[in-house]
Amino acid sequence: MAHIELNNDLPGIRGLMFYRPETEAPLNALAEFLLRGDNTLSRGERELIGTYVSYLNDCFFCQNVHGAAAGHYLDCNMEQIDAIKADFTSASLPPKMKALLAIAASVQKGGKYVTPEQVDEARQEGATDKEIHDTVLIAASFCMFNRYVDGLGTWAPQDRSFYINRAPQRAIEGYAGSILK
Amino acid sequence: MAHIELNNDLPGIRGLMFYRPETEAPLNALAEFLLRGDNTLSRGERELIGTYVSYLNDCFFCQNVHGAAAGHYLDCNMEQIDAIKADFTSASLPPKMKALLAIAASVQKGGKYVTPEQVDEARQEGATDKEIHDTVLIAASFCMFNRYVDGLGTWAPQDRSFYINRAPQRAIEGYAGSILK
Repeated sequence: MAHIELNNDLPGIRGLMFYRPETEAPLNALAEFLLRGDNTLSRGERELIGTYVSYLNDCFFCQNVHGAAAGHYLDCNMEQIDAIKADFTSASLPPKMKALLAIAASVQKGGKYVTPEQVDEARQEGATDKEIHDTVLIAASFCMFNRYVDGLGTWAPQDRSFYINRAPQRAIEGYAGSILK
Repeated sequence: MAHIELNNDLPGIRGLMFYRPETEAPLNALAEFLLRGDNTLSRGERELIGTYVSYLNDCFFCQNVHGAAAGHYLDCNMEQIDAIKADFTSASLPPKMKALLAIAASVQKGGKYVTPEQVDEARQEGATDKEIHDTVLIAASFCMFNRYVDGLGTWAPQDRSFYINRAPQRAIEGYAGSILK
């Protein structure tokens, strides 16, 4: 049960946005731009960054919503996403993506944990400054979303097929205006 | 020097928004609503929550921008704001505010650190569910803003009079569209 009376039974951040609709527009606009807007990082790569940070923050709702989205875009199943979360360094991912996930992991700990060496490594693996910027902001934004969802004790469906089944439709609809549907 | 080439010399988040203007609108809309929108928490109280979280995250830029704003609204000086940051439990603050700052401190550590007992305590001191909600989201959003600012290694003026002197004008202008000025 959530820490406050939300007056709806929507899960995770959806229940919070229904409760406080004024926050929906800016939060969804941010997610829509960062995760789905024009970008040299694919939607799957960006969802994976959000998934990994949500995993590090132990946010069940976010890591499954976005893990299912990452799996949808990257054409892999939840077991493969789980394996990446558990140890991305051993995963079959491009070196650039590994370098960006390392930066995201530092951001999760705190902004000052990002080192010039991590940034240099990402650049050497082909990351542009904009990709490094977006990785940091995606990781930072999930440190917000995760805290929002868990800080108010929202509920989340425990059956992961809920998230997997919704991912294709979410990929079509995007994040803007999601609670109205 | 920032980790990436920002092509401008604006400090903190302003330089980042100039570099990636697509993010400015949602981030500023969020800050504007949370910190300045209609609310039973005063602007000063909300700025103080953001200041305290920024202090816990050791973000110099944010804790001074928002500390100066809090001081402006609450009619106290930076030394008094510093004393609150260092130990809000001993400060001359209403019990409700102390209970909300305790929740904010838990959010800074992670969403799951917020306890039902903290929420009950805030309620007993008169906090409404909406105030508890907004405290969590303000604290969560500063966990994003702080990581964004420091994760990209932005610079910040070290002379705190810079922040103090700007606070009255910021109080008039608000956060929307700030980099255009």
